[in-house]
Amino acid sequence: MTKAEQITSRVDALRSWMRQHNLSAFIFPSTDPHTSEYVPDHWKTREWISGFNGSAGTAVVTLTRAALWTDSRYWLAADEQTAGTPFEVMRCSRNVATTDELIEWISKERQAPAGDDEEAPMVGIDGWCVAQSYAVGLQGAVDAAGMTLCTDRDPAAVLWTDRPSLPASPIELQPLEYAGETAESKLQRIRETVGEAGANATIVTQLDDIAWTLNMRGTDVHCTPVFVAYLMILPDSATLYVDAAKLSPEVRRYLDGINVQTAPYQTIADDLSRSRGLRGLCFLIDPDTTNSAIYNYLAMADTLDSRSVFPDDFYANAMNIAISNAAPITVPIVEAECPVAQMKTLKNTAEIRGMHSAMLKDGVAMVKCLRALSQIIRQGQDLDSLDITEMGVDKMLTAFRAEQEGFRDISFDTIAGYGHHAAIVHYEASPETDIPLKPHGLLLLDSGAQYVDGTTDITRTIALGPLTYEERRDYTLVLKGHIRLATAVFPKGTSGTQLDVLARYAMWQDHKNYGHGTGHGVGSFLSVHEGPHQFRMNWMPAPLRAGMTITIEPGIYIAGSHGVRIENTMLIVEDDSPVNQSPIDEKANVQSGAWLRMEPLTLCPVDTKPIVMEMMAPDEVAYLNNYHARVREALLPLLTDEDDRHWLIKATEAI
Amino acid sequence: MTKAEQITSRVDALRSWMRQHNLSAFIFPSTDPHTSEYVPDHWKTREWISGFNGSAGTAVVTLTRAALWTDSRYWLAADEQTAGTPFEVMRCSRNVATTDELIEWISKERQAPAGDDEEAPMVGIDGWCVAQSYAVGLQGAVDAAGMTLCTDRDPAAVLWTDRPSLPASPIELQPLEYAGETAESKLQRIRETVGEAGANATIVTQLDDIAWTLNMRGTDVHCTPVFVAYLMILPDSATLYVDAAKLSPEVRRYLDGINVQTAPYQTIADDLSRSRGLRGLCFLIDPDTTNSAIYNYLAMADTLDSRSVFPDDFYANAMNIAISNAAPITVPIVEAECPVAQMKTLKNTAEIRGMHSAMLKDGVAMVKCLRALSQIIRQGQDLDSLDITEMGVDKMLTAFRAEQEGFRDISFDTIAGYGHHAAIVHYEASPETDIPLKPHGLLLLDSGAQYVDGTTDITRTIALGPLTYEERRDYTLVLKGHIRLATAVFPKGTSGTQLDVLARYAMWQDHKNYGHGTGHGVGSFLSVHEGPHQFRMNWMPAPLRAGMTITIEPGIYIAGSHGVRIENTMLIVEDDSPVNQSPIDEKANVQSGAWLRMEPLTLCPVDTKPIVMEMMAPDEVAYLNNYHARVREALLPLLTDEDDRHWLIKATEAI
Repeated sequence: MTKAEQITSRVDALRSWMRQHNLSAFIFPSTDPHTSEYVPDHWKTREWISGFNGSAGTAVVTLTRAALWTDSRYWLAADEQTAGTPFEVMRCSRNVATTDELIEWISKERQAPAGDDEEAPMVGIDGWCVAQSYAVGLQGAVDAAGMTLCTDRDPAAVLWTDRPSLPASPIELQPLEYAGETAESKLQRIRETVGEAGANATIVTQLDDIAWTLNMRGTDVHCTPVFVAYLMILPDSATLYVDAAKLSPEVRRYLDGINVQTAPYQTIADDLSRSRGLRGLCFLIDPDTTNSAIYNYLAMADTLDSRSVFPDDFYANAMNIAISNAAPITVPIVEAECPVAQMKTLKNTAEIRGMHSAMLKDGVAMVKCLRALSQIIRQGQDLDSLDITEMGVDKMLTAFRAEQEGFRDISFDTIAGYGHHAAIVHYEASPETDIPLKPHGLLLLDSGAQYVDGTTDITRTIALGPLTYEERRDYTLVLKGHIRLATAVFPKGTSGTQLDVLARYAMWQDHKNYGHGTGHGVGSFLSVHEGPHQFRMNWMPAPLRAGMTITIEPGIYIAGSHGVRIENTMLIVEDDSPVNQSPIDEKANVQSGAWLRMEPLTLCPVDTKPIVMEMMAPDEVAYLNNYHARVREALLPLLTDEDDRHWLIKATEAI
Repeated sequence: MTKAEQITSRVDALRSWMRQHNLSAFIFPSTDPHTSEYVPDHWKTREWISGFNGSAGTAVVTLTRAALWTDSRYWLAADEQTAGTPFEVMRCSRNVATTDELIEWISKERQAPAGDDEEAPMVGIDGWCVAQSYAVGLQGAVDAAGMTLCTDRDPAAVLWTDRPSLPASPIELQPLEYAGETAESKLQRIRETVGEAGANATIVTQLDDIAWTLNMRGTDVHCTPVFVAYLMILPDSATLYVDAAKLSPEVRRYLDGINVQTAPYQTIADDLSRSRGLRGLCFLIDPDTTNSAIYNYLAMADTLDSRSVFPDDFYANAMNIAISNAAPITVPIVEAECPVAQMKTLKNTAEIRGMHSAMLKDGVAMVKCLRALSQIIRQGQDLDSLDITEMGVDKMLTAFRAEQEGFRDISFDTIAGYGHHAAIVHYEASPETDIPLKPHGLLLLDSGAQYVDGTTDITRTIALGPLTYEERRDYTLVLKGHIRLATAVFPKGTSGTQLDVLARYAMWQDHKNYGHGTGHGVGSFLSVHEGPHQFRMNWMPAPLRAGMTITIEPGIYIAGSHGVRIENTMLIVEDDSPVNQSPIDEKANVQSGAWLRMEPLTLCPVDTKPIVMEMMAPDEVAYLNNYHARVREALLPLLTDEDDRHWLIKATEAI
């Protein structure tokens, strides 16, 4: 049976199952019960039903048609992977289709309008694999279209015969040396924040939040050192819902010691519907990260005395339920951001020390890779092609990283894009697309690693030989934007949106722009993408705070030609640098608020060859030269190979 | 009877009236029924009850106490003006007290807690003089405190015996030569926008919106050429609610001609509660600009068939009422921004021509004033004081403006602040505060005028002689910020919040900042403050669009020492300037979106004497020199006095 025939037969089986359960349509999103960025195979139901393996996409099957929504990054791949199947590729401009788009399409698929006494057509989605806030939006769209929503059925549970089991890799403890704060202390702080929000319990569902809270790490998920679990935190106890097979005796003893009980992963549903235990509790729940099933188990738990507060239209109104601090606890759910999200963004001294250590190792690996590449370039400069491909660069870089102490994994799939491939923002070389590098043009290399003491994320764009003026000009515009933002000093309370334009001002003068955000937080041996703070044009109110990490990664992408991105991971610090304050200023005491700035954590030369010097302002040149002096000072003592040392010295020469 | 005794006796009378009507507290805000920035005397009830005449403040009287909330600009004045009265000055950090602050204070004033069968204490506010969105917030706070809100009583109507009558100044027509679009065309476009929002009627309540729509101007309000009225726009007719005494036969004929009926100003309430006429209508209402009385007349009108859609708790839920475009009209109110707000910000060709003309006249007046001032400085350079005070500068400048053709009024009260007075952001010199200028330090001069063809707003900070280093440094930082923002090129869809930091980057490096926004729209012979677009750190999503005016006015204020602000009014235009696009860029077609930039409308030299040249970047110097060349070219032909010409040539010399 071909792949396409397999998919077709799965869709047929799904439709039989849908008829059995009176479902007119079923939606397969690409998330899992933990709103993970990387999803364990067990929850790749969208790929199972459609054959499409991209990271973002939504599949919908009705009784007569099937469609797959995905964004421009994946249109070609989706076309290829769904050829010969019932799926039609729907081109959407965002990462995911809006609920309105999906429901509008489903509505059109309905045959003749339903008679008065006919039941409203039912649309299904697995409530475990969709965030509550998404489910609320979906419910609204479904209601408006005169249909009903079913969230308590998972066809994959019965139809996916060779479904991969849940990952069961062992859990390790993250030493206090790196974590810097005990789990008891973190649990205590979470309870305090939950209390301030007017609740006394919470369920932590995001895997990196759980790993951070308990100082534990796993290998269940690609590129991210987390393990599949839920963590329920009550006033005097906590329960980790996790597969017992993951727990070594050491980890069990550790959990005992910090007063965290364990229970099998799947039993959280039972616990949430049981009568005991929940009385008197008020849960802080983050509707953006908690799946709809968990939310509804909790909201519907029959022990709660507060059913009367729920309006008839529970779903549509769920977003409006909130209680004030002062009011007695009469509703069971306070909707608020999970307190761990903010807490884990503020790195403590040990984490910052670990970050610096990880950056040194990563810098050494990068330098070795770039030096090796420079040798390949020299050897191939008169040939048509260099003796390496995009995937070859990826492999070489990963090998240099793997040599480093404490290396555990890469932190995301390397983007090594040469020439026009670099203009594809999320390009990942595959055997089908891989091309050899040539001794001219630009190579974009966006990569990172997981070390036991920190996570890295770095992009360099490297000249492989002669460049066109456009390549040099765009490189310089990106570099100017990077530096302008990197040099910003800003008052406490400033958010990333309020600074983002600094990275774009120079290229906007030239009518260039980029469609992605300018930066994101980076975890401490955790997820490479960490929120809620960001550099982004769209309004992100979360203020930047001292102790947060954030990347700066502007880019320019000229389709069919070239792409440039230059990224450092930064640490936000208090700006106590002496400014030219005079007695007059001090007397006036205008500057009582504290000021922040950013320091580069990343240690790796920025290629100076492509720079158009006439376009650079003196302070931009000074910044780059200072940075290179720091990189040289930090990395040179760690390099033993003379060629590596020589390369670094040359690469960090002042311009 | 002293002023303080008068106030005390008014408060006594108010308390008697309150007891009569079972009111425990009454709130006097500083707005009028049209959410005007400048309020006609008739509606200055807060000043009447408290004696405090600042532009922002809220008075509250309970049966036992009285308090006045105002911000730091007015603390001193409020203390003085309320001395000897029952009012206690409450210092708030914002322009106005939040509803929560007010209600919390009122709650504390309540005597013993109410028994079960006692009526909840009642808090009053005049529903005519408060926006619906504010009333909704107030209702929430009042409910939470276990009190009730009364919005249908105005104690001033019965107790204010010598209350000024409503302004009755005559209305003039704004010629099409300046307006650029007929009222019929504007009404047609408003009806279309109202239709797109799913409504078919609207009530325009802001006075500048009414004046813009009908191409009519008045003199009812200080500094703003508007007249007191409401404008109801129905599918096939429109009614202007206005005092008949304001209407000349010419204006009556004009209104007849454009199919706009008139009715006495006060009869809008009757019309909104009458049965006929409203059936089948669905009103677009802007809750931020429509007063609560109008809103509720409309919402409660007994002809509407849709009462059932209102939840029990009408107020608390009013904000949630909205209908979609497609749905049948079953609710009478669609809450949305008044369509006129956006429309009038986009200046048409005639308005832009008029703006340019107004700026030439204003530039001539400014040059004459600055030239005269330079002469006074020369004459007084060896003396202790110059022969002019802050108010003298104001008077001289206004006189030069009044000489200009088409001058009608100043557009706001001039801010002429010398030395430490310039550090008070909204300083307005009064006989009590007025000081003579001295031959050193900085004079901040923020002023503007209403000409029949346009409105101006300009700030210059001028060296009167030797400056301290701090003055020069801060001046240069402000100038750098002004220029950086003024040179921005940005893609369509960008909002002011996304650009604001460009004006702050330079001073933030030096730990300086300012607490106000960086810029606002300016009307066409209308209000000097026009929204919704702004440069501001707080999130203002309204995108900047070609044809909008916007000021750029960063500042630095060192309390007790000096203040700097440099402001030009700008026009947003399409950026069709040739950028260095190559065939590669064109082929890649990355730049399909349009780009915008700003052009200075204001024509007046920026003082170059305070500039610290070493702090200026080459492109900043180039911008200033180009601007000065343009100012010289535009104004020189309009100056006949040789001294003025000489001064302008010197003031616009390249640096």
